Amino acid sequence: MQSIKVKSPATLSNLCCGFDILGMALEIPFDIIELKWREEPGISITHLDDFNLPTDPEKNIAGVALQAMIDQLDYKHGFDIIIEKKIKPGSGIGSSAASAAGIVVAANHLFENRFTKNELVSFAMEGEVLASGSRHADNLAPCIYGGLVLIRDTATLDIIELKTPPLYITIVHPQIEIKTSYARKILPKEIPLKSAVVQWANVAGLVTGFLHSDYKLIGRSLQDIIVEPVRSKLIPGFDLVKKNCLDAGVLGGGISGSGPSLFMLSENEAVAKAAESEMKAVYSNLGIDFKTYVSTVSTNGVEVF
Amino acid sequence: MQSIKVKSPATLSNLCCGFDILGMALEIPFDIIELKWREEPGISITHLDDFNLPTDPEKNIAGVALQAMIDQLDYKHGFDIIIEKKIKPGSGIGSSAASAAGIVVAANHLFENRFTKNELVSFAMEGEVLASGSRHADNLAPCIYGGLVLIRDTATLDIIELKTPPLYITIVHPQIEIKTSYARKILPKEIPLKSAVVQWANVAGLVTGFLHSDYKLIGRSLQDIIVEPVRSKLIPGFDLVKKNCLDAGVLGGGISGSGPSLFMLSENEAVAKAAESEMKAVYSNLGIDFKTYVSTVSTNGVEVF
Repeated sequence: MQSIKVKSPATLSNLCCGFDILGMALEIPFDIIELKWREEPGISITHLDDFNLPTDPEKNIAGVALQAMIDQLDYKHGFDIIIEKKIKPGSGIGSSAASAAGIVVAANHLFENRFTKNELVSFAMEGEVLASGSRHADNLAPCIYGGLVLIRDTATLDIIELKTPPLYITIVHPQIEIKTSYARKILPKEIPLKSAVVQWANVAGLVTGFLHSDYKLIGRSLQDIIVEPVRSKLIPGFDLVKKNCLDAGVLGGGISGSGPSLFMLSENEAVAKAAESEMKAVYSNLGIDFKTYVSTVSTNGVEVF
Repeated sequence: MQSIKVKSPATLSNLCCGFDILGMALEIPFDIIELKWREEPGISITHLDDFNLPTDPEKNIAGVALQAMIDQLDYKHGFDIIIEKKIKPGSGIGSSAASAAGIVVAANHLFENRFTKNELVSFAMEGEVLASGSRHADNLAPCIYGGLVLIRDTATLDIIELKTPPLYITIVHPQIEIKTSYARKILPKEIPLKSAVVQWANVAGLVTGFLHSDYKLIGRSLQDIIVEPVRSKLIPGFDLVKKNCLDAGVLGGGISGSGPSLFMLSENEAVAKAAESEMKAVYSNLGIDFKTYVSTVSTNGVEVF
């Protein structure tokens, strides 16, 4: 095989109480990444979008992730990468993870699946470090594994696949800028033990809700009393979106990743679309540009296109 | 029915990372509680053990729990309670919960199962408040529901039954005194957010391990980086017991409840018994009296004897 084209999906990380440990792959939106073998060494990158991302492979997330893989091989040739990003950078739905995960899965196909999924996550993490400065796998792991994923331990990449019942995910991306580094900086360094216990009770409830296909339990557990109260202040319309979507019947929701995108989970498509209407109404009224998606869970993650 | 006899089992609460939210019922040890209807109003209590527990029904855990139930009924008669406690008070394996849970389950049989399990937990909680001064259900709920139980929320008694694969539990009770109130007082009020994330990642891993019957994941997740480092200092021999039991092949373990009992979980009985030998050796060497048990999970909790 000399070339391959993959779609690499957006991902939802944190899922309220599951801060830094849970992530879920979405069917839409997704980037399209094409990787072509070439005789000459080196990596060249072409973008078919207008996000002005760097094309220098040492400064490009996909370039860095691919290079991390190549460094493990005795490989003397090169690659051309053509990226059509549809997941807007800085949206909080795993745009950088899609680039990093997509390229390593694509390259692994060309290298005849030489690497395990865990190894792919570790290569892709080099791209994520370039993007955010910190080692996180809560977008990468679901992007590569598909479905809902628990990262029990990032250092050892202890990644556990969890099943979910059918779910609809409504996303709104209000077009404001929140830097991941700033969203991380404003978090409290210390939290009350009592709050931590509430949070891990909800984490246990959320995981059980998914594994038992218990929608009501998922809804009761989709709470975040630690991160959301701080970060939601950076997102105009947050409280109203949440209230109106809950009134419309969603199970629950909150901030996607470090924001500004918000997500709501629903048991059926009609409720998910009603939530989308509520989101549109809030941001139209606020005069803030936005984009919405109604998606299901991507069980495969990155896929050959 | 005019009288009933139940066995009310010991329970393991916390399970390392699951501080304040997880509890598990054990087959042994258990208390034996007999409840007899009588014509005259009031509650009288007889103890067939030598723990010197109060027999004044307003100061006795079983008496208070039973009264909480009777207060909900238009009931003009009385009860005689005969308790043979085998779970030593202050051992950290749910001695007070066994009294409170046993009596309300027994009485519910006499009242033709008028109350739900959740209502029984709430009556029994009145007894626990007498014992520890705080409202906790992490011993009561497994004692009444049986098996492994998640208390997602104590205020609303959101109790979720979790399944476990076959497990053997080795317990050692070194006969030293640790007051629950003191064990609670020495806990940090605030903890680093980073530590909390590690803890809830392990909680998610532990719950998933149980629900997936994944013993290795249970083992990797049986960690407590918040409470154990503080409380284990109160328990001589803790580090050595843990190290030797892990070397003997247990999945993991730690402090049972607020101590001083220690527990270890094993996949098979041979390992559980090897762990028991290690525990015996440590406390024999330290010259501290002790008692050990090797139990399985009680799937029923309180049972008619």
